[in-house]
Amino acid sequence: MLNSRFSYSALQRVARAGKPHKLLPSSRRYATLSTFFQHEPSQPSIKTELPGPIALQMRTDLNDVFDTRSLNMLVDYKKSHGNYLADPDGNILLDVFAQIASIAVGYNNPHLEQASKDPAMVRSLINRPALGNFPDAEYAEILRTGILQAAPPGMNQVFTASTGSDANETAYKAAIMWKAQQNRGGPEVEFTPEEMSSSMLNKAPGAPNHSILSFHGGFHGRTFGSLSTTRSKPIHKLDIPAFDWPAAPFPKLRYPLHEFEAENTAEERRCLQETEKLIQEFHNPVAAVIVEPIQSEGGDNHASPAFFQALRELTLRNNVLLIVDEVQTGVGATGKFWAHEHWDLSIPPDMVTFSKKAQAAGYYFREPSLRPNKPYRQFNTWMGDPARAILFRAILEEITTKDLVAHTAKTGKYLFDQLEQLSSKYPGEILNLRGKDRGTFIAFDSPRRDELIKRAKSSGVNLGGCGDRAVRLRPMLVFQEHHANILLEKLEDLIRQ
Amino acid sequence: MLNSRFSYSALQRVARAGKPHKLLPSSRRYATLSTFFQHEPSQPSIKTELPGPIALQMRTDLNDVFDTRSLNMLVDYKKSHGNYLADPDGNILLDVFAQIASIAVGYNNPHLEQASKDPAMVRSLINRPALGNFPDAEYAEILRTGILQAAPPGMNQVFTASTGSDANETAYKAAIMWKAQQNRGGPEVEFTPEEMSSSMLNKAPGAPNHSILSFHGGFHGRTFGSLSTTRSKPIHKLDIPAFDWPAAPFPKLRYPLHEFEAENTAEERRCLQETEKLIQEFHNPVAAVIVEPIQSEGGDNHASPAFFQALRELTLRNNVLLIVDEVQTGVGATGKFWAHEHWDLSIPPDMVTFSKKAQAAGYYFREPSLRPNKPYRQFNTWMGDPARAILFRAILEEITTKDLVAHTAKTGKYLFDQLEQLSSKYPGEILNLRGKDRGTFIAFDSPRRDELIKRAKSSGVNLGGCGDRAVRLRPMLVFQEHHANILLEKLEDLIRQ
Repeated sequence: MLNSRFSYSALQRVARAGKPHKLLPSSRRYATLSTFFQHEPSQPSIKTELPGPIALQMRTDLNDVFDTRSLNMLVDYKKSHGNYLADPDGNILLDVFAQIASIAVGYNNPHLEQASKDPAMVRSLINRPALGNFPDAEYAEILRTGILQAAPPGMNQVFTASTGSDANETAYKAAIMWKAQQNRGGPEVEFTPEEMSSSMLNKAPGAPNHSILSFHGGFHGRTFGSLSTTRSKPIHKLDIPAFDWPAAPFPKLRYPLHEFEAENTAEERRCLQETEKLIQEFHNPVAAVIVEPIQSEGGDNHASPAFFQALRELTLRNNVLLIVDEVQTGVGATGKFWAHEHWDLSIPPDMVTFSKKAQAAGYYFREPSLRPNKPYRQFNTWMGDPARAILFRAILEEITTKDLVAHTAKTGKYLFDQLEQLSSKYPGEILNLRGKDRGTFIAFDSPRRDELIKRAKSSGVNLGGCGDRAVRLRPMLVFQEHHANILLEKLEDLIRQ
Repeated sequence: MLNSRFSYSALQRVARAGKPHKLLPSSRRYATLSTFFQHEPSQPSIKTELPGPIALQMRTDLNDVFDTRSLNMLVDYKKSHGNYLADPDGNILLDVFAQIASIAVGYNNPHLEQASKDPAMVRSLINRPALGNFPDAEYAEILRTGILQAAPPGMNQVFTASTGSDANETAYKAAIMWKAQQNRGGPEVEFTPEEMSSSMLNKAPGAPNHSILSFHGGFHGRTFGSLSTTRSKPIHKLDIPAFDWPAAPFPKLRYPLHEFEAENTAEERRCLQETEKLIQEFHNPVAAVIVEPIQSEGGDNHASPAFFQALRELTLRNNVLLIVDEVQTGVGATGKFWAHEHWDLSIPPDMVTFSKKAQAAGYYFREPSLRPNKPYRQFNTWMGDPARAILFRAILEEITTKDLVAHTAKTGKYLFDQLEQLSSKYPGEILNLRGKDRGTFIAFDSPRRDELIKRAKSSGVNLGGCGDRAVRLRPMLVFQEHHANILLEKLEDLIRQ
């Protein structure tokens, strides 16, 4: 994992910083030997209470014009490097949340910095095209060397969008148009005058009540269509009108998995049966099922590859599409580039949506038949952002050059093993540890989750929560064993206190 | 309008290029004296059929991975300057459509180029924050010197979003939460257990059927919520489920306005009465009315300031919010920074949404009470893009330095007057000319619209259409009299042929 561009003196500095931590078991002591970032701090450094006096003042100032009630911390990005976030008071935190899982290769990554200074990036920033009408002549090349390099197995098409919500909504539109087209008798059948006129009144048959099935606990975004499939928490949904769409139960697995094999298999079977029943019986016909490989916002809820294999078969059998939402799970964090690659599907999903760590967004698909039958049906002014497509290309280059997916699989294995040991040592404190063999995409439940996260922050580690009581680890792909050791040490400290 | 940074030799070159056009009336002949762009071509140059052989091949290549059926032309942005678009075959077109009205200050604008190379821009590109949780400590400063510099009169708050659709949807959510909160008895009243649980099932009372009223002919975006308010064309809406929300008639004015004053006043009164009736009687209670100052996608449909003043009063009287959608009309093109400034409202709208030429997106508002009662109710991972906020700041600097709003008012007046003369000369060809005193935001109907646009393109002018038969002129703010003269000459040529 040694980056050959880094100087000997930098390595020396890192080696000096890698002094043994007093609470670490000996197996963890000497892992700190190299870093991906020349300017990365060697450890967190907390100088003030959090937020500190400068941050407090700046927060008050910001709040005059921009709602700051969800603010976690103000960041000095100039001084943030690699896995470390700096704040305006000079505090330095190890970041294991990474902007809600949306930073892939570290703060102020030199390769991304270089790509951002490239004339192609500058042009794409200042001449933002209406991509559906006036794309850059090089857009095919940008896609082929970037977004499509990362296309999931079996997929060769992309529709670009702006955000995760937008990626999911455009995928829903593609699915619903596909379904309506099928019902109509094929792409060549013209719309009827009644369809044309009723669509303008938001009424069937022109605007029929097709639905997207999602799972309880799922999170797919917060615009009106995506929010109708989000089933994570009331705070996301209260007061907002939603479509009458179905939600199926998602398996509630019991941990440790090897102790509850029979129960978990039965639970997954029950959920699949409910899903199929809803597809066959729900009053608003289902066009597609959307599912996260790991329900993230909803609590890091897992299901087995067998569950997803059966879901794929079930959607095929019932002639509905399967959309895999990889907005949070995609781009390497699970130890494969796409989390659904862990399932070994014989037939790929119909669409895979992406955003966050990709920085670009959209959906991949495999069949030109998911292009609607006429132009301008799936269209909007920007259709994504070429600047972010170019950035995704640079992220991919960085991932490839440093072999960061394999690296994350390895670091994740180490981290999981160590957390498992901690969990055995403090069985009431680290519960339902999950994410084995899923890279660093690891979570556990805590009886005092919010307090734990708060105290971790004060001790220099930025953690995220999800669901009701889960701590979700969402480090970047440049997270290394020595970062894991700091996290583990702080966790043990906090638990022992 | 002379930019003092430009060299004498550049001016010479431009002056040489400004040879009299044979069909121009003498008043137009000698207007070409200065340009905002050193590298801007002096006129269109068409070397091949459109699309040319290289573009055709590249289009086929792009179509393998990305739907190109709505493609208008592939662009060589490297060679595009100011008001001119270049294609890969070396053709140069005067662009009077500007990426569906979303380029403000010209292709490869040197000031934007400089801003894009700034370290702050590079940092914001490569360290994209979750703005609601971890904003840059300088975000207040970025907002105050940028987006908020452009805040409409009476507004001092902003919620940032990613696109025009997203701007409108987040505005709808704010409006609907405001309405529900009022019905509940105020911000301090807690949600009931029934609201909490029913929201998770997409059902009332937790997800009640509040609605947003829009106007027939309006366009507000293409995600599910915004599309439910879009009423422009069936192709935007067919097959997509939509909320049962009301649409009121928008005035159909007759032109020329001075000949139809009484009829138009009556028509506006009729539309206002229908609007008020819908607000009072529609079965899904209305939380807000959204309206474009000029219905753009729907055909460049205008209404008088008196109509909008009455609409403001009507919304206040009925306790619903007024959202002005300035996604297309905003940022100077109408000769004022925001088109709704033409109305001289005594009480500003409740929210103004923006995107396109701003490059950033979101909604402005004036009351902290439009912040929902709890954090995380109006939230998403990115909440816009600081890179685009920085770019908007640079666009604003450019607009201010070059006084481009006043410039556009002046150029628009010239263009409108000339078009009025053309319309008198060829009365069957340029119909219902509209946009007087609205800067360059001008449109007219054409009996052979699609053919006219196609032929204009072949002769070197890129025009856009809207509605059923309108040509909409959507030049950038750097459009000058000599560009107008080229447009006018080409139009007259095409009409005479």
